[in-house]
This record gives sequence, C-alpha cells and structure tokens, in this order.
Amino acid sequence: MAEALRVALAGLGTVGGGVVRLLDANRDLITRRAGRAIEIVAISARDRTRDRGIDLSRFAWVDDTSALATHPDVDVVAEMIGGSDGPALTLARATLAAGRGLVTANKAMLAHHGLELAEAAERAGAALKFEAAVAGGIPVIKGLRDGAAANEIARVYGILNGTCNFILSKMEAEGRDFAEVLAEAQALGFAEADPTFDIDGIDAAHKLSILASVAFGTRPAFGDVVAQGIRHVLGADIAEAAALGHRIRLIGLAESGPDNTGTGGLFQRVHPHLVPLDHPLAHVTGSTNAVVAEGNFVGRLLFQGAGAGEGPTASAVVADLIDIARGEYGPPFAMPAASLTMPRPADSGERRGRAYVRFMVEDRVGVLAEIAAAMRDAGVSIESLIQRGATQDGRVLVAIVTHDGPERCVAQALERLRGSQSVAGQPLWMPILG
Amino acid sequence: MAEALRVALAGLGTVGGGVVRLLDANRDLITRRAGRAIEIVAISARDRTRDRGIDLSRFAWVDDTSALATHPDVDVVAEMIGGSDGPALTLARATLAAGRGLVTANKAMLAHHGLELAEAAERAGAALKFEAAVAGGIPVIKGLRDGAAANEIARVYGILNGTCNFILSKMEAEGRDFAEVLAEAQALGFAEADPTFDIDGIDAAHKLSILASVAFGTRPAFGDVVAQGIRHVLGADIAEAAALGHRIRLIGLAESGPDNTGTGGLFQRVHPHLVPLDHPLAHVTGSTNAVVAEGNFVGRLLFQGAGAGEGPTASAVVADLIDIARGEYGPPFAMPAASLTMPRPADSGERRGRAYVRFMVEDRVGVLAEIAAAMRDAGVSIESLIQRGATQDGRVLVAIVTHDGPERCVAQALERLRGSQSVAGQPLWMPILG
Repeated sequence: MAEALRVALAGLGTVGGGVVRLLDANRDLITRRAGRAIEIVAISARDRTRDRGIDLSRFAWVDDTSALATHPDVDVVAEMIGGSDGPALTLARATLAAGRGLVTANKAMLAHHGLELAEAAERAGAALKFEAAVAGGIPVIKGLRDGAAANEIARVYGILNGTCNFILSKMEAEGRDFAEVLAEAQALGFAEADPTFDIDGIDAAHKLSILASVAFGTRPAFGDVVAQGIRHVLGADIAEAAALGHRIRLIGLAESGPDNTGTGGLFQRVHPHLVPLDHPLAHVTGSTNAVVAEGNFVGRLLFQGAGAGEGPTASAVVADLIDIARGEYGPPFAMPAASLTMPRPADSGERRGRAYVRFMVEDRVGVLAEIAAAMRDAGVSIESLIQRGATQDGRVLVAIVTHDGPERCVAQALERLRGSQSVAGQPLWMPILG
Repeated sequence: MAEALRVALAGLGTVGGGVVRLLDANRDLITRRAGRAIEIVAISARDRTRDRGIDLSRFAWVDDTSALATHPDVDVVAEMIGGSDGPALTLARATLAAGRGLVTANKAMLAHHGLELAEAAERAGAALKFEAAVAGGIPVIKGLRDGAAANEIARVYGILNGTCNFILSKMEAEGRDFAEVLAEAQALGFAEADPTFDIDGIDAAHKLSILASVAFGTRPAFGDVVAQGIRHVLGADIAEAAALGHRIRLIGLAESGPDNTGTGGLFQRVHPHLVPLDHPLAHVTGSTNAVVAEGNFVGRLLFQGAGAGEGPTASAVVADLIDIARGEYGPPFAMPAASLTMPRPADSGERRGRAYVRFMVEDRVGVLAEIAAAMRDAGVSIESLIQRGATQDGRVLVAIVTHDGPERCVAQALERLRGSQSVAGQPLWMPILG
C-alpha cells in the first residue's frame, strides 16, 4: 500500500465539516478505492472554539489559513472557504505555487480566476480539481471532462441553483408568489439571508461559466454570461406555463456558435425558461440539480442529483481527492490551458426560438391592439395569446407565445412598447427550451 | 505534444465503424482534450471486402484478429467483436499478456471473465477500460468508479436494455401486447432476429453484474443475477399499472446487504418493476437507458442517455481511449482486483417491499376466495385488488397490490396456488420500485 495522501483542510463550514465526516465514515472503503489512505493532517478555520460536533484534536490547527499552502507534510489543500478573492484566492495561489494539489468547491473563484489557477497548476505539475464547484454532488465536471470527452458539445444546460428550483417548485405546487415563498425558504434555511447570488442567477452564472469552459475548450468567461434570476416570475406565469404544458425552471445554458470551436461565438445565459413536460428537466423538483450535455456522437446526456448540502458536496470533494490519490488527474479544464480558446460572446439577437412574453396591462380598450401591433411591426409571429380577467389591482395579464424566430425581433417589440401607458411594469420574456 | 496513442481495432460492426468515424470527425478536438493524437494503426474484421462507407486503406489490415495483440507499434487494442468467449476473449487475454491496454464494449466477456482480465491488466500494468459495455454512451462506469467513489453505495439500479424499454414504451403508448410490438421492433431493426438476450434480461444481467462490481467492490458475479425479462408482461398489466400511477420498466437492481461491504450479501436481479410516476425512471422512454446510484453521502444520482447505437457506443469507447492517452486509468473495477470481495448472494426471500401480482383466472364462483385465502395463509397483506370483466377467451384479470412485506410470503402464496384449477397460466409477480 502506498503512503497516505495528506490533506490540509481550509474552512470548516458545511462543506469542510462534511469532508471530515465523510472521510471518517467511509475510511476503509475510500482506502480500498483510492489504493491508499486519505488523511487530513492540518486544518484552518475562522473560529477554533466553535463546536462542530467533530473531534478536531487529531489535526494540526493552523491559525493563518494561507500557511496551509506550505505546511509540512501536506500533499493537497482542500479549499472550502469560498469567495472569489480574499483568503481563498491567496491560499489557492500559494498552494499551487508550492507545487501542491488544490481541491476546491469555490465556483466564484474559478469563474473569475480559473484560467490563472489552471496555468499555475500546469506549471507546477499539480492537480487542480473542482467537482464540487458545479452542481454539488453530481459528477458533471468529470462527466464532461472524461465521460463526454470524445464529443463536440453543441450545448450544455441545466438547473444549476437548488434554491431557485426549490422556490419555483414550491410556487408551482402551492400556487403562491415569489416573495412569499422566498420568505418561507429563508425562514427554513433553504435560502440565504441575502439571497441575491442565488435568486438573481449569479451563482448559476458562476457554475455555467465553468461548465462552458470544460465543454467547449474555452477560457472561463464569467463576464460574458447574461444572467437574470427568478424575482420577476409570478405565480400567474407558472399557471400560464402549466396551461401550455410547460414548467418554469431557471436554466443556465451555454451554446457554441456555428463552427463550434469556441471561436465562432459562445452564448452563455442564465434565465428562467419554459421547459416542456416531455423534457426531463421539467420533472426536476425541489433543490435537485440536473445538467444536460448534447454531444455530436453521444446525443443527449443527463446528470441529476443533489446540487448542494453537506453530504453531496463533500462527496464531490472527496471524489477529487480520490482522483489525486490514484494519480488520475490532468489539465483541469479538460485540456491544457494554452489550448483553451478565448471565446467571443455570441450575439443573442441571432438566436432563434419560441418564447413566452407576459404583460400586465391596464384593462381598457385598445391595449391588445397596441401590443399586437408592436409585435407585428417587429416581425414577431404570434402562436397563441391568452388574456386573463382583471386581478384585484385592476390589471389584466396577457401571455403570448411566439412562433420560432430571432430573439432580436421580440426585443424590438418590447422596446417599442417601452413607455406605453397601457403596459404596467416590465414585461417578462422567457425562452421556451427547444 | 506527446506521441500519438496507437490503437488496433478489432471488429468493424456498428461499434467499430462508429469508432473510426468518430475519430475522423472529432480528430482535432480529441487531440486537444487527450493532449496527444489518437490514431488507429491496424484493424481486423471478419470480412475485408464489405463496404462500410469508411476508407480502410489507411490502416494495416490484419487477417488473424488475435495477432493484433502483438502487432508492432500498437499501444491499445479496442475489442469490438463481442461474445463472452471465442476470438474476443483470446484477443483480450493476448493483449493484456503483451502489456498493452484493452478497451472493450463486451459486456458478456466482462460478466464472465472480468476478474481474470482485471488481474491480467494489473499484472501487466496495462489499462482495461469498458465504459461502452454498460448503458452505451452514458458514462456510468466512470460515474461510479470516479464520480461516486467517496460513497458507500446502498443500491444501484436502472434501465439497462434499450430494446426492452423501447418495447415497453410502445406497448404503453399504443395499448398493444408484447408479441405484436416485438415483431414490429424486429421488422424495424430495433430488436435482433433472435431477441432472447435482450428480451429475457440476459443482456441487462451482464451489465448489472459489471455495475455491481464497480459499485460494491465485489467480484463480478453474473451467475448470481436472477433474471426475468418482459415476455410475460401483458398490455393489460401496463394498463393496470397506469391506473395505479405506475409504469412498467425492466429494471436491473443490485443491492448490498446490511453490512454493505459485499460480504453481507449482494442481491442482484433483473425483473420488470412497477415504477411510480414521481420517479425519474418512469419518464425514461424509447431506447434510452438510465442508471441510479444511491450513495450514503451523495444521495441519489441519476445518469441518463442513449443506451446503444453507433454514435453513443463509439463515444464511450473513445472516452476510454482518451483516459488512456491522458494516463488517467487505474484498477478497472475501481479498486485492485485483490481488494474485490467474493459476494455472497443475498436471500431474496428476506427482501421487503410492495408488489403487483396479476392472475388470469376462470370466471367462476370461488376463484377470488381461493386467491385471497392463499394470500392470507402465506401472510401476505393486500393493499388493493382489482378484478376486471372477462376477456374474449372467457378469462378474468385479477391484479393485486400487496402491502410492504417479505418477498418470501408472496412466493409462498403463489406456490399454494400452483396447480389450482382456477388460475390459468403463470401469475405475474412484479416488485414495486420503492
């Protein structure tokens, strides 16, 4: 039996604590699978005194987190601190500079600094692994990097944020509105006190930019992800979608342009979509995540499982440690950093598809004509239109499904209606997943 | 750039042809991802003259397939011949004995000789990879071996045979009986002229024994898989299942006994199941495959995709070649062969669950009483019972759903009814997936 893989653990929150517990619970099995033991030798966290229900006295305690990078007798640092910059980034840089492996669950750091870290890892010949950064326990990074490696990927998309899916599913099941369900989710601990990163799609955008890099051989380009969250989805939208045979899901979607080398334009968007009931993502409820990859030989692959939580995230972190213990790791983004192309953001206006557009309008003569005229003048072909009776505030819901067409046209129609006296608030446009 | 990985290809049927086409189509991308080119240098197949729509003149043609094992300048042999023994096994043994890597899609060979081949690969320090052997294009071997590696797996199960799922979905959608749909599937080329391996669950059993080995750290034990196929499923069963909120799927399921080390009993069965509509497997239709693994930290993981066909299977084969080109391979069954335990077949009688039992009975007084008494005497508690009016042959369908209980009791009840004058033919028992 080879010597143990020695791990330094930075951060003892939900994920870090889970890693300790998992390595304790499945110790023998992991040793058999990895071909050697995996042992935590040193830890660092903000508060040494907090009771986490784990015996920490076995590990060397290090006050200065960044010192883990050069702590003696450490092979790999597991960074479970979080945050795109600050102590996590300092530790990551120092770890790789010291020629040691790095395992991280930090999607924000990878979205912003992934290329730099991959280059540093390659220079040092060290491992950089981040299965837990995307979709929690689902091995989707391995699924794309290894499992689908033979394929040109046309698009990769999925449900990447469990909080949003929990809220949308609950709105759907109980016929309630966003704000109410969010408040309840916060009370239950399913949503953060400051839910912005989740609710506004930023967390999903971080993950999408990582998935896109692995899938398309492009540098992570978080800045190019256009993200809109679920704040503006009404209970009424969910009901209309249901009547049309769809469910609303927050989907992160990355799609490669025509030449599909990453140079032909890469489209990345997080946005609520209408998902048809015959699509597996329509049946993903609660905090579950799911990712679909479409390859030119394999066709459609689906990976589904728990997107967050102590156990699933720890499972992904330790899977990465096992890869390292086995010596089975290579370029982090599925190919050498120098081979990653710089993606050109694709023009979303050129994308074609069907869409749902919902207006809240004043209940008076001529409103429908005004909307219909704007659609016509922008070249939008209407497949169906539903107008529902007035709500308590005297407003009327108008939901339109467009025929297949360029997104540009719908955007132009909405632009024409901007400032209209008839339309109350912002209309909600959502693509229909094709 | 490192030197190319040189591949000898044995067999040019659907899978072999697909591998050639994939390596041609995605050549540059694969080189970037693998860090080196992957090149076929020699081929062997039964018929040199057959037109396969591929230019084979680029490759050295070898008449004696087994000679590929020692053909000069070959790093890896890709065995796409099939069959548990014969030329495939001869080639596999010779390849590993020569210290070369082996990639195979051959589930029958692995089910029967997996342990021997794994030992040979380890002795030689050579790769043995078989992603394509289970569930076609779905990277479920990698998903279990690598992705879920940190978990103790409680059970692994799924839809492992596309032909059966195609037939069951079609029976379901069109309300037709098995024989009729099978004949049509054969005419369309979706089922083999001799469909026994698919229809009777043997193909699924091969795959299940491989999955179980990787999931539980046990030696492949195909002989312990109890397999029953879909021949006896009636259109009427599908209708009854639907009325109960279920769909019928042929499920291969492996479950580890209480101590979950593989020594506490391993249960392996292929059998039609009733799957509740809120389970993702209920929504898998057509020839799609899907596998679920339940881990003690990750929870329920689902992998879904195309289970067969040229493109998907080639995708899995080439993914394995990429692993080898990257040098990212290790023990084939997720741990060294010497660590694999010998599984003790679990006693299915002790398994608990709900079940569906269907009888075709004569339409006369006392039949229901006889069945109900047999159930009672065997200690089976009945949750619901439906009797449908007589069919054209004067028989009556009786469908029972049992409460949760040991399988042994239902088996005893059926044993009591054996030889009854009232019951026509063999009753059909199907577990309800819990």
